[in-house]
Amino acid sequence: MQWYLVATLLTVLTSSQGILTTLSQTNGTYKYDYATVPFLAEVFKLAVSSLLLWKECQKSPLPKMTTEWKTVSLYPIPSVIYLIHNNVQFATLTFVDTSTYQIMGNLKIVTTGILFRLFLGRKLSNLQWIAIMLLAVGTTTSQVKGCGEASCDSLFSAPIQGYMLGVLSACLSALAGIYTEFLMKKNNDTLYWQNIQLYTFGSIFNLAKLIVDDFRGGFENGPWWHRIFNGYTVTTWLVVLNLGSTGLLVSWLMKHADNIVKVYSTSMAMLLTMILSTFLFSFKPTLQLFLGIIICMMSLHMYFAPPNMLLDMPLTVKPDEEERLIEVSVDRRTHS
Amino acid sequence: MQWYLVATLLTVLTSSQGILTTLSQTNGTYKYDYATVPFLAEVFKLAVSSLLLWKECQKSPLPKMTTEWKTVSLYPIPSVIYLIHNNVQFATLTFVDTSTYQIMGNLKIVTTGILFRLFLGRKLSNLQWIAIMLLAVGTTTSQVKGCGEASCDSLFSAPIQGYMLGVLSACLSALAGIYTEFLMKKNNDTLYWQNIQLYTFGSIFNLAKLIVDDFRGGFENGPWWHRIFNGYTVTTWLVVLNLGSTGLLVSWLMKHADNIVKVYSTSMAMLLTMILSTFLFSFKPTLQLFLGIIICMMSLHMYFAPPNMLLDMPLTVKPDEEERLIEVSVDRRTHS
Repeated sequence: MQWYLVATLLTVLTSSQGILTTLSQTNGTYKYDYATVPFLAEVFKLAVSSLLLWKECQKSPLPKMTTEWKTVSLYPIPSVIYLIHNNVQFATLTFVDTSTYQIMGNLKIVTTGILFRLFLGRKLSNLQWIAIMLLAVGTTTSQVKGCGEASCDSLFSAPIQGYMLGVLSACLSALAGIYTEFLMKKNNDTLYWQNIQLYTFGSIFNLAKLIVDDFRGGFENGPWWHRIFNGYTVTTWLVVLNLGSTGLLVSWLMKHADNIVKVYSTSMAMLLTMILSTFLFSFKPTLQLFLGIIICMMSLHMYFAPPNMLLDMPLTVKPDEEERLIEVSVDRRTHS
Repeated sequence: MQWYLVATLLTVLTSSQGILTTLSQTNGTYKYDYATVPFLAEVFKLAVSSLLLWKECQKSPLPKMTTEWKTVSLYPIPSVIYLIHNNVQFATLTFVDTSTYQIMGNLKIVTTGILFRLFLGRKLSNLQWIAIMLLAVGTTTSQVKGCGEASCDSLFSAPIQGYMLGVLSACLSALAGIYTEFLMKKNNDTLYWQNIQLYTFGSIFNLAKLIVDDFRGGFENGPWWHRIFNGYTVTTWLVVLNLGSTGLLVSWLMKHADNIVKVYSTSMAMLLTMILSTFLFSFKPTLQLFLGIIICMMSLHMYFAPPNMLLDMPLTVKPDEEERLIEVSVDRRTHS
C-alpha cells in the first residue's frame, strides 16, 4: 500500500470527521456526551487490530510480537502525553479565546518538525524546513479573521500565560505524535500487535476519564455504562467509526511513513473542510482561504518533489552577463 | 557596485517615497498639483544623467553611444506603455475600489515573471517560479482586510470588467518594466546615454500631460509654467527628488540586474512601509502583515539562495527504510 494513498485517505476522513461532528449536533449543541466518543473509538480500533492480528496469525510465518515488559511498558506513554495535553489545552482556553487557540495550534506543525529532528534524528534539507514553515503559515493565513466578522477580539491582547500555554500545547501535541512514531519504528513487530498495546492503554485512559466525569457529575445520569449511549444517533456512531478509522490510518503512517506526512494530511484536511463548508454550511469563501490553499499546495510540492524537478534549470548563456554553466546531478529517492 | 546594495537602496527609497508623499499632504489632501511631480522627477533624472555622461566623456576611451534613429526611436515606447497603463488604471478604478485595485496590483509580480520568460527568454527553475508566486501571495496576504476595518466591501463583488481591466493593468505594468530592461540590455551603450534618451521622452510625455490638464482645467490657474510650483513645500521637493532617485536606481538595475530583482525590491518596500506606518502613523500591526513578511522573506531566500544551500542534506541511512544516498553537485553563479 502506497503511503500517499493512505495519506490522501487520512485527509478525506479527517475532513469528514469535522463535518460529521458538526452534523451530529442538534441546534448547535451535543445531545450526547462527547467524551464517550474517544473511548468508543479506542475500543473500535482495538477490536479491528485484534481481528487483523488474528488473521495474520493464521498464516505462517507467525508475525513478530515483542511481549517483554520493558517494551510493552512504553505504550502507555502516548496516552499520558495526550492526557497532559488535554489539560494544558483546557488551561490555555481560560486565557485565550477559541480562534486564538486555533491559530496557535498551527505551531504544532513547526514543533513536530523540530522534534522530528531533535528526537528522531531525521535530518531535513533547508528547503524542507522552509516548506514546513510555509505549511504553518498557509494554514494560519486561511484562518485570519476577515473584514466583517462578528466578534473581533485582538489576537495580540491575551495575557502572556495564554501564549506560553499555547506554545506548550503545540509542543505536547507534537511530542505525542513523535513518540508514537518512535514506538512504531522501534522494532519489527507487526503493526497490529503494536496497535493492540497502544489502544489497550488508550481505552484504559479514556475509560478512567469517563469514570472521573461520573464522580465530578455526581453520578447524575448514572455510572458510565448506563449513560454511555445516551443521545446517540446514527450520525454519532459515524463520528465514532470515523474517528477510529483515522486513528488506524495514523498508526499505519507512523510505521510506514512519518509524522511530517501525517501533518501534511491533517493540514490539507483543514483546508478541505473549509472548502466543503462553503457548500454545506454557507461558509463565505474568503481571499485568505484562497491564499492559504495556494501556500499549502506550494509547501506540499516543495517538500515532496524530487530536487532535480525543482531545480530543473535549462542552460541560459547570455554574452553580456557573467553566468557560469549549471550542472545539477541529483539522485534521491525516499519512501517517506 | 553590487546589485544587492542598489536593490536595498531602492527598497529604502521606495518605502520613503510612500511615507514622504503622505507627509506632503495637508489634512489629507494635496495643496499642490500631484501631476507636476512626475514631470519634475523626469527633468531631475535627465539633469543628473546628463551631468554623469559629461563627466564620463572627460575620460577616455569615450563611452559608447548609439545615435541611429532606429535605436533611439525605441526609447519613447516605455513612456507610451505607461501612458496606456495610467488610463487603464483610471478605467479600472471606475469599477473597483482602491483596496481591490491594490490587491489585484500584486498580479504584476506574476505577469513580470511571465514576460521575463516569454519576452526576454530568461528561463527560471521550478523553484524560482514558486518563489515568484509566493512573493505575490505574501504581499497580497499582508493587504488582507482584517477584522474590524471601517469599510468592508467584498473583494469578489465587482463587475467582471473591473477584474479584466485589473489584469490588463498588471500586464501593462510588467510590459513597461520588461521593455525597459530589453532596451537597457540591447547594446553596450553607457547607461547615462540610455537614460538621457529615456528621460527626454519621459519629460516630453509628462509635459504633454500637464498641457492637456491645462486645457481640461480651462487654464484656471494659468498655463503649466505659472502653476507648476503652486503649493510646493520642502516636503514636496523631497518627494520629487526621491521619485527621481528611485527612477535612476531602477534604470541601473534594468541594465546590471533584472526585473525580478526590481520586483523583489519594491515588494519589500511595500512591507517596510507598512512596518514603518505602525510607528509613524499608528497603523495597527496585524497577523496578516506578520504572515506576509514571513512568506516574502522565504520567497526571497528561495529565489536567490544557491541550490546547494537549499538542498544541503546530510546523509541519513535508516535500516528499515529504502532510502538511496544523496549526491548533489551544483556549480552555479550568476550576477542577476
